[in-house]
Amino acid sequence: MSKNQVQIFDTTLRDGEQVPGCKLNTEQKLVIAKQLDFLGVDVIEAGFPVSSPGDFKSVQEISKIVKNATVCGLTRANENDIKVAADSLKYAKRPRIHTGIGTSDSHIKFKFNSTPKKIIERAYEAVSYAKSFVEDVEFYAEDAGRTDNEYLARVCEAAIKAGATVLNIPDTTGYCLPDEYGTKIKYLRDNVKGIENVILSCHCHNDLGLATANAIAGIQNGARQIECTINGIGERAGNTALEEVVMIMKQHPNLNLDTNINTQMLFGISKLVQDSMGMNVQANKAVVGDNAFAHSSGIHQDGVIKNRETYEIMDPADVGVTESSIILTARSGRAALAYRAKDVGYELTKMQLDALYPEFLKYADMKKEVKNEDIHQLMEINNTLLYFS
Amino acid sequence: MSKNQVQIFDTTLRDGEQVPGCKLNTEQKLVIAKQLDFLGVDVIEAGFPVSSPGDFKSVQEISKIVKNATVCGLTRANENDIKVAADSLKYAKRPRIHTGIGTSDSHIKFKFNSTPKKIIERAYEAVSYAKSFVEDVEFYAEDAGRTDNEYLARVCEAAIKAGATVLNIPDTTGYCLPDEYGTKIKYLRDNVKGIENVILSCHCHNDLGLATANAIAGIQNGARQIECTINGIGERAGNTALEEVVMIMKQHPNLNLDTNINTQMLFGISKLVQDSMGMNVQANKAVVGDNAFAHSSGIHQDGVIKNRETYEIMDPADVGVTESSIILTARSGRAALAYRAKDVGYELTKMQLDALYPEFLKYADMKKEVKNEDIHQLMEINNTLLYFS
Repeated sequence: MSKNQVQIFDTTLRDGEQVPGCKLNTEQKLVIAKQLDFLGVDVIEAGFPVSSPGDFKSVQEISKIVKNATVCGLTRANENDIKVAADSLKYAKRPRIHTGIGTSDSHIKFKFNSTPKKIIERAYEAVSYAKSFVEDVEFYAEDAGRTDNEYLARVCEAAIKAGATVLNIPDTTGYCLPDEYGTKIKYLRDNVKGIENVILSCHCHNDLGLATANAIAGIQNGARQIECTINGIGERAGNTALEEVVMIMKQHPNLNLDTNINTQMLFGISKLVQDSMGMNVQANKAVVGDNAFAHSSGIHQDGVIKNRETYEIMDPADVGVTESSIILTARSGRAALAYRAKDVGYELTKMQLDALYPEFLKYADMKKEVKNEDIHQLMEINNTLLYFS
Repeated sequence: MSKNQVQIFDTTLRDGEQVPGCKLNTEQKLVIAKQLDFLGVDVIEAGFPVSSPGDFKSVQEISKIVKNATVCGLTRANENDIKVAADSLKYAKRPRIHTGIGTSDSHIKFKFNSTPKKIIERAYEAVSYAKSFVEDVEFYAEDAGRTDNEYLARVCEAAIKAGATVLNIPDTTGYCLPDEYGTKIKYLRDNVKGIENVILSCHCHNDLGLATANAIAGIQNGARQIECTINGIGERAGNTALEEVVMIMKQHPNLNLDTNINTQMLFGISKLVQDSMGMNVQANKAVVGDNAFAHSSGIHQDGVIKNRETYEIMDPADVGVTESSIILTARSGRAALAYRAKDVGYELTKMQLDALYPEFLKYADMKKEVKNEDIHQLMEINNTLLYFS
C-alpha cells in the first residue's frame, strides 16, 4: 500500500519571523525561501503582506523565485488585506491566500465584539472574496483549540461552501492536550459536510510543550497538512517544529505517512535559520540541537560502542549530522575512555585501562569535558603507571 | 473530589548533569538541591554514586541538607553499585535506591549478551539486595519503550515480588508516540499482579520532541510519578521538562491531577540551572523561555491589549514572570503602538495614531525591534506631522 502523503506547510517566514528579534530583510528571506523550496516543503507561508511595505515586497520577491512550493500570504477577514495579499502573490506559480477569523468565545466577544452568526458570515465572505483572486484558498478558524466543536463545524461548512481548499484548525494559544486536539480533528472529519473534498491542517503552538504531539495527534485522526517552522520558532513559545514531525513520520513506518522532505537538509537549514535570525536552538533541542546525538553517561556510551541502535533511534546522517559523538566526562565509563583514547592513538590493554581509569575520574571530576588534548595530558602524567601495568 | 496526586521526581542532578558541559561540583549541586526542595519536588535524584568519587560525595552531601524530598541514587543491577549507593545515602531522611536493567531485545542481546530469563533473575536479585539497605526501592526497566509489553509485565512482577515500591517505565531512546506510551502504561496497570501496591513512573526522552506529551499520556493512563528535569535538560535531546508537565496539570483542571510544586518558583529555578550549567534555554522554550509570554504580531498584540485571555492561557505571574510584554516590530499594529507610546508618555489621538503609523512601519522595517528610545526618536522626527493631525 502506498503511504499517505502529509503536506508540510512551512511558516518560518511568517509566524517565525514575527517574533521579537527575528525580523529579516527581503534579501535574507529570499535565501531561506530558496532553501525551503529545495528542502521539499509543499507550502511556504511567505508573510503577512498588508502588515508593512517591507513584508509586501518580501512576499512578492519570494513569489518570483520559488519553483516548486505553493507560496502563501496571510490575511485577516477583510477586503483590503485580501486584495493586498493577492497583489503580492501575482508572480507566484502556485499562489495561496490564507484568510480567516477568530472563532472562540473569547475572540468573538473580546476581539471582535461580534456574534457567532456574524463571524460565520464574515468567514464566508472572506473566503469568497479571496476565491475571486486565486483558486487555492486556505481558511483558518483562529483559536479553534478553544472553540466549541459543534460551532467550529458550522464555521468550517461555511468556508467549504465559499470554496476553501484547506481548513486550518489552529490551537492558537497552545492549550490543547494531544487526545483533545485529535478528538477535535476527528469530530470535524465526522461532522462537516464536504470535508472529504478539502485538506484539514494542524497549526499548533507550544505554550505547554505539546505542539509536536498535537500535530501528530491531528494527523493520526485524519488531518493531512502540518503547519510548522524550522527549529519550532514562532509567536511566544513557538510552533510545531518541522524537523520533529518529519522525523516522527520517517521513524514510525507503522503510521504509514510520508512527506516530500529531504531530511538530510534538516541540520543545515536549522543552522541557516539560527544564524540569520540570531535565534539559537538549545543544546538539547530534538533532532537539531548540539547534543541531540551526543552520548555522555558511561552506561549509554558503553551501549552505543557495542551497538549503535542500543541508544540511537535515528541515524544522525539522515538529518545531515556527520556522526554522533562519545563525549568524555566524569560520568563516562571504561569503554568510552578506551574508545576515545584509541581515537587519538593509544591502544590500551585491559590492565592499562584499569590502572588509568581511576586517574581519569579524578581528572574528569575537575573538568566539564575531557577533550583530546586532555587525553594526551592524562597519558603523559600517568606514563609510569601505564608502563608497569 | 480531591485531586489525584502526581509525584514529581527531579533528575536534573543526575540525567541532567551527565550531559556534555553540564558537570557541577558538589557546592553547585547543593545550591540546586536546596532550591528543588523548596520548589516542592517529591524526589531528588542526586546522582549515580558509583560513577565517580565526586558524584559519591555530592549524593552524600545532598542527603545531609535536603529536608522534605526523598533523596535517590542511581545504580546498575549489581551488588557494588547498590552497596555504594546505600552508603552515599546513609544521611538521607528519606533514602531511595533506583536500580534496574535493560529489558528490550536490543539491550538484552547487545548490551548484556544475556537472555530474557536471566535478565528477570538479575532484576529480582538487584531489587532484593537494595531492599536489604532501604525500604524505598525504585526499579527501572531500561528501554521499556522498545520492550515487548508481555515480557515487560513479567519483569515488573519480579521487581514487585522482590519488594520494589516504584516501577519506572523509561522510554530511554525517546521513540514512543504518546498513544503508544499511554497504551503501554495501561497494559501494565491491567496485567501486572500487585501493580495496585506500587507507583508507576514515566521517564521519557525527547529525541522526537515528545517527552512531555508521553509523560502526560502515561499519567492519563494511571502512572503517578513523572521523572523530569528543569528546562528539560538530559542525555541527548533531554528529558521531560518539569515546568511543562507541572503547568499542564495546573492549567487543565479536568485532568483532576495535582502536584506539590510551588509554580511561582519555576522561572527563578530555570535561570539558576541555566546559569550554573551554562545551558541556556532557547527564547521559544515553553513556560520559561524569554519569549514565552511575549506578544509581537499586530493581531496578537491587539487581542492581548483588549483582553489578556485572548492569547494567554497562563498568567505569567503563576510561573514567576513579572509580566508579559508587548514588543514592537514591523508586524505590530496600531493598538500596540498606541499602548507602548502611552507607556512612555505620549497619549495619541486616533488621528495622530493614523498619521504616525505608516512612519512607524517604515522605521520598524529597518529594525529588529522598536525600543522605548526609538519611540522617542520617532515622535521627535514626526513632531510636525503630529502637531497638524
